[in-house]
Amino acid sequence: MADWLWDHGGEGFAQAYRVDEVFLDAQSPYQRVRVIRTPMFGRMLILDDAVQTSEADEFCYHEMLAHPPLLTHPQPRRVLIIGGGDGGLLEEVLKHPVERVVMVEIDRLVVDATLRHIPEIPGRAFDDPRTELRIEDGFAYVRDCQERFDVALVDSTDPQGPSVPLFGEAFYGDLFRLLGDDGVLAVQSGSPLYQADLVSQVRRHLRTHFPVVRTLLTCVPSYPGVLWTFTLASKRADPLDLPPEAVDRRVAGMGLRYYTGLQHRAALNPPPFLRSVLEG
Amino acid sequence: MADWLWDHGGEGFAQAYRVDEVFLDAQSPYQRVRVIRTPMFGRMLILDDAVQTSEADEFCYHEMLAHPPLLTHPQPRRVLIIGGGDGGLLEEVLKHPVERVVMVEIDRLVVDATLRHIPEIPGRAFDDPRTELRIEDGFAYVRDCQERFDVALVDSTDPQGPSVPLFGEAFYGDLFRLLGDDGVLAVQSGSPLYQADLVSQVRRHLRTHFPVVRTLLTCVPSYPGVLWTFTLASKRADPLDLPPEAVDRRVAGMGLRYYTGLQHRAALNPPPFLRSVLEG
Repeated sequence: MADWLWDHGGEGFAQAYRVDEVFLDAQSPYQRVRVIRTPMFGRMLILDDAVQTSEADEFCYHEMLAHPPLLTHPQPRRVLIIGGGDGGLLEEVLKHPVERVVMVEIDRLVVDATLRHIPEIPGRAFDDPRTELRIEDGFAYVRDCQERFDVALVDSTDPQGPSVPLFGEAFYGDLFRLLGDDGVLAVQSGSPLYQADLVSQVRRHLRTHFPVVRTLLTCVPSYPGVLWTFTLASKRADPLDLPPEAVDRRVAGMGLRYYTGLQHRAALNPPPFLRSVLEG
Repeated sequence: MADWLWDHGGEGFAQAYRVDEVFLDAQSPYQRVRVIRTPMFGRMLILDDAVQTSEADEFCYHEMLAHPPLLTHPQPRRVLIIGGGDGGLLEEVLKHPVERVVMVEIDRLVVDATLRHIPEIPGRAFDDPRTELRIEDGFAYVRDCQERFDVALVDSTDPQGPSVPLFGEAFYGDLFRLLGDDGVLAVQSGSPLYQADLVSQVRRHLRTHFPVVRTLLTCVPSYPGVLWTFTLASKRADPLDLPPEAVDRRVAGMGLRYYTGLQHRAALNPPPFLRSVLEG
């Protein structure tokens, strides 16, 4: 029988992918890093036992984490990314007229594995002169940072292993401090179906620092349960005030495959059965 | 190791559910019928190896198959349901001021299994005086029917076994004939990710008869890949012309948990990467 990868979304539930080829299976100081090929999603990056991204649907995740906060900020110039070693988020950010993007990834192997085996995901993003890639602990970087940013994005794994501090209240307080007066933060906040407690925790911790906190509902087909959330926190502007037409105007020409003005509005207006999780 | 149910969405991909209890496992003349209990979705109805519905998310499917066509028709009074033996769709239809609903289900065991093991799904729908349940072949019923209907809904399994004729052009032609001048039809049309060919086939066959054909994109968490489609065909009215505010007004008080005016609009405006499948 062929080997299958099981990505457990929750108790007694998994998405399962047949593994047709293994390009890399290595242990870094932080996690097990694999690149595999599956029939439905092509090449996939797996950290420990969880799908991180795939060549077939990486844009679903990266567009929805990058563009809503960048459009919520009136004029984003300086962007900080914590995590996101595959470079897919970085590529989306660089589609905007930003001046500088600092990306802090703890695990060099994630960057190297993607560049070697799924180079289409970052494209040329790591070579962009606006990019500064730092291989170090994002939590410590944010705590000690003296630089100011307009937008910060946290593209982390779920709160296990190296990512645990990235879901704590202290980390969000440090991010608040390094953001400017119009600062906007967005973080991956888990599955609304299988990690409802995580979504609630993220929202609660963010609200202790930021006046505006909005959770976006979207779809990532390669993730268990497909429905996924990102949570946006802002010092001033509210993404709810962004008309769909303004979104479509500002992303015109970027070649996006998921995010549109209507997806922006839909992400902020979930079906009633998820409101208690996403708006609680 | 515990038993797991694998629902294969496509080549090398499945959603997997741990089976904590089996309430029923029987063979009807048409298919294997199971009712099981899983940690995430509670009691689930399984036909052959495919999840049909679950107590946790049945409303996601049934609301999105029932309400968009019923609201697209100006005044639906007589409704025909083909399939849908679990009664969840029937229950949604009966929330509207309809006068008569004929439901034609080929397999009595599906009705009996649901009534016995997941009675919350149909509720009291089968006892409603407006309901006429017929246990017979839906294809033959539609071919020979002399009665006229305003709305027809096809809640079938995927095109395997008894459902194959329900995806053919002849069946859609017969449905066109038994619908009135404002007639609206809606059918379950498969996964946009794993059954793109099926979606295209349904759209092509419907277009040979109906002037308006629209595919709606929605989410059914217990289905493999979660993203799912229903395709609506209409003789006159276009669901795109229905303003979200009108939807919200007409479903107010129905206690819906998925469908809203904004979900209506979002379902008709998919992310760009799915447009070629859903609008092609």
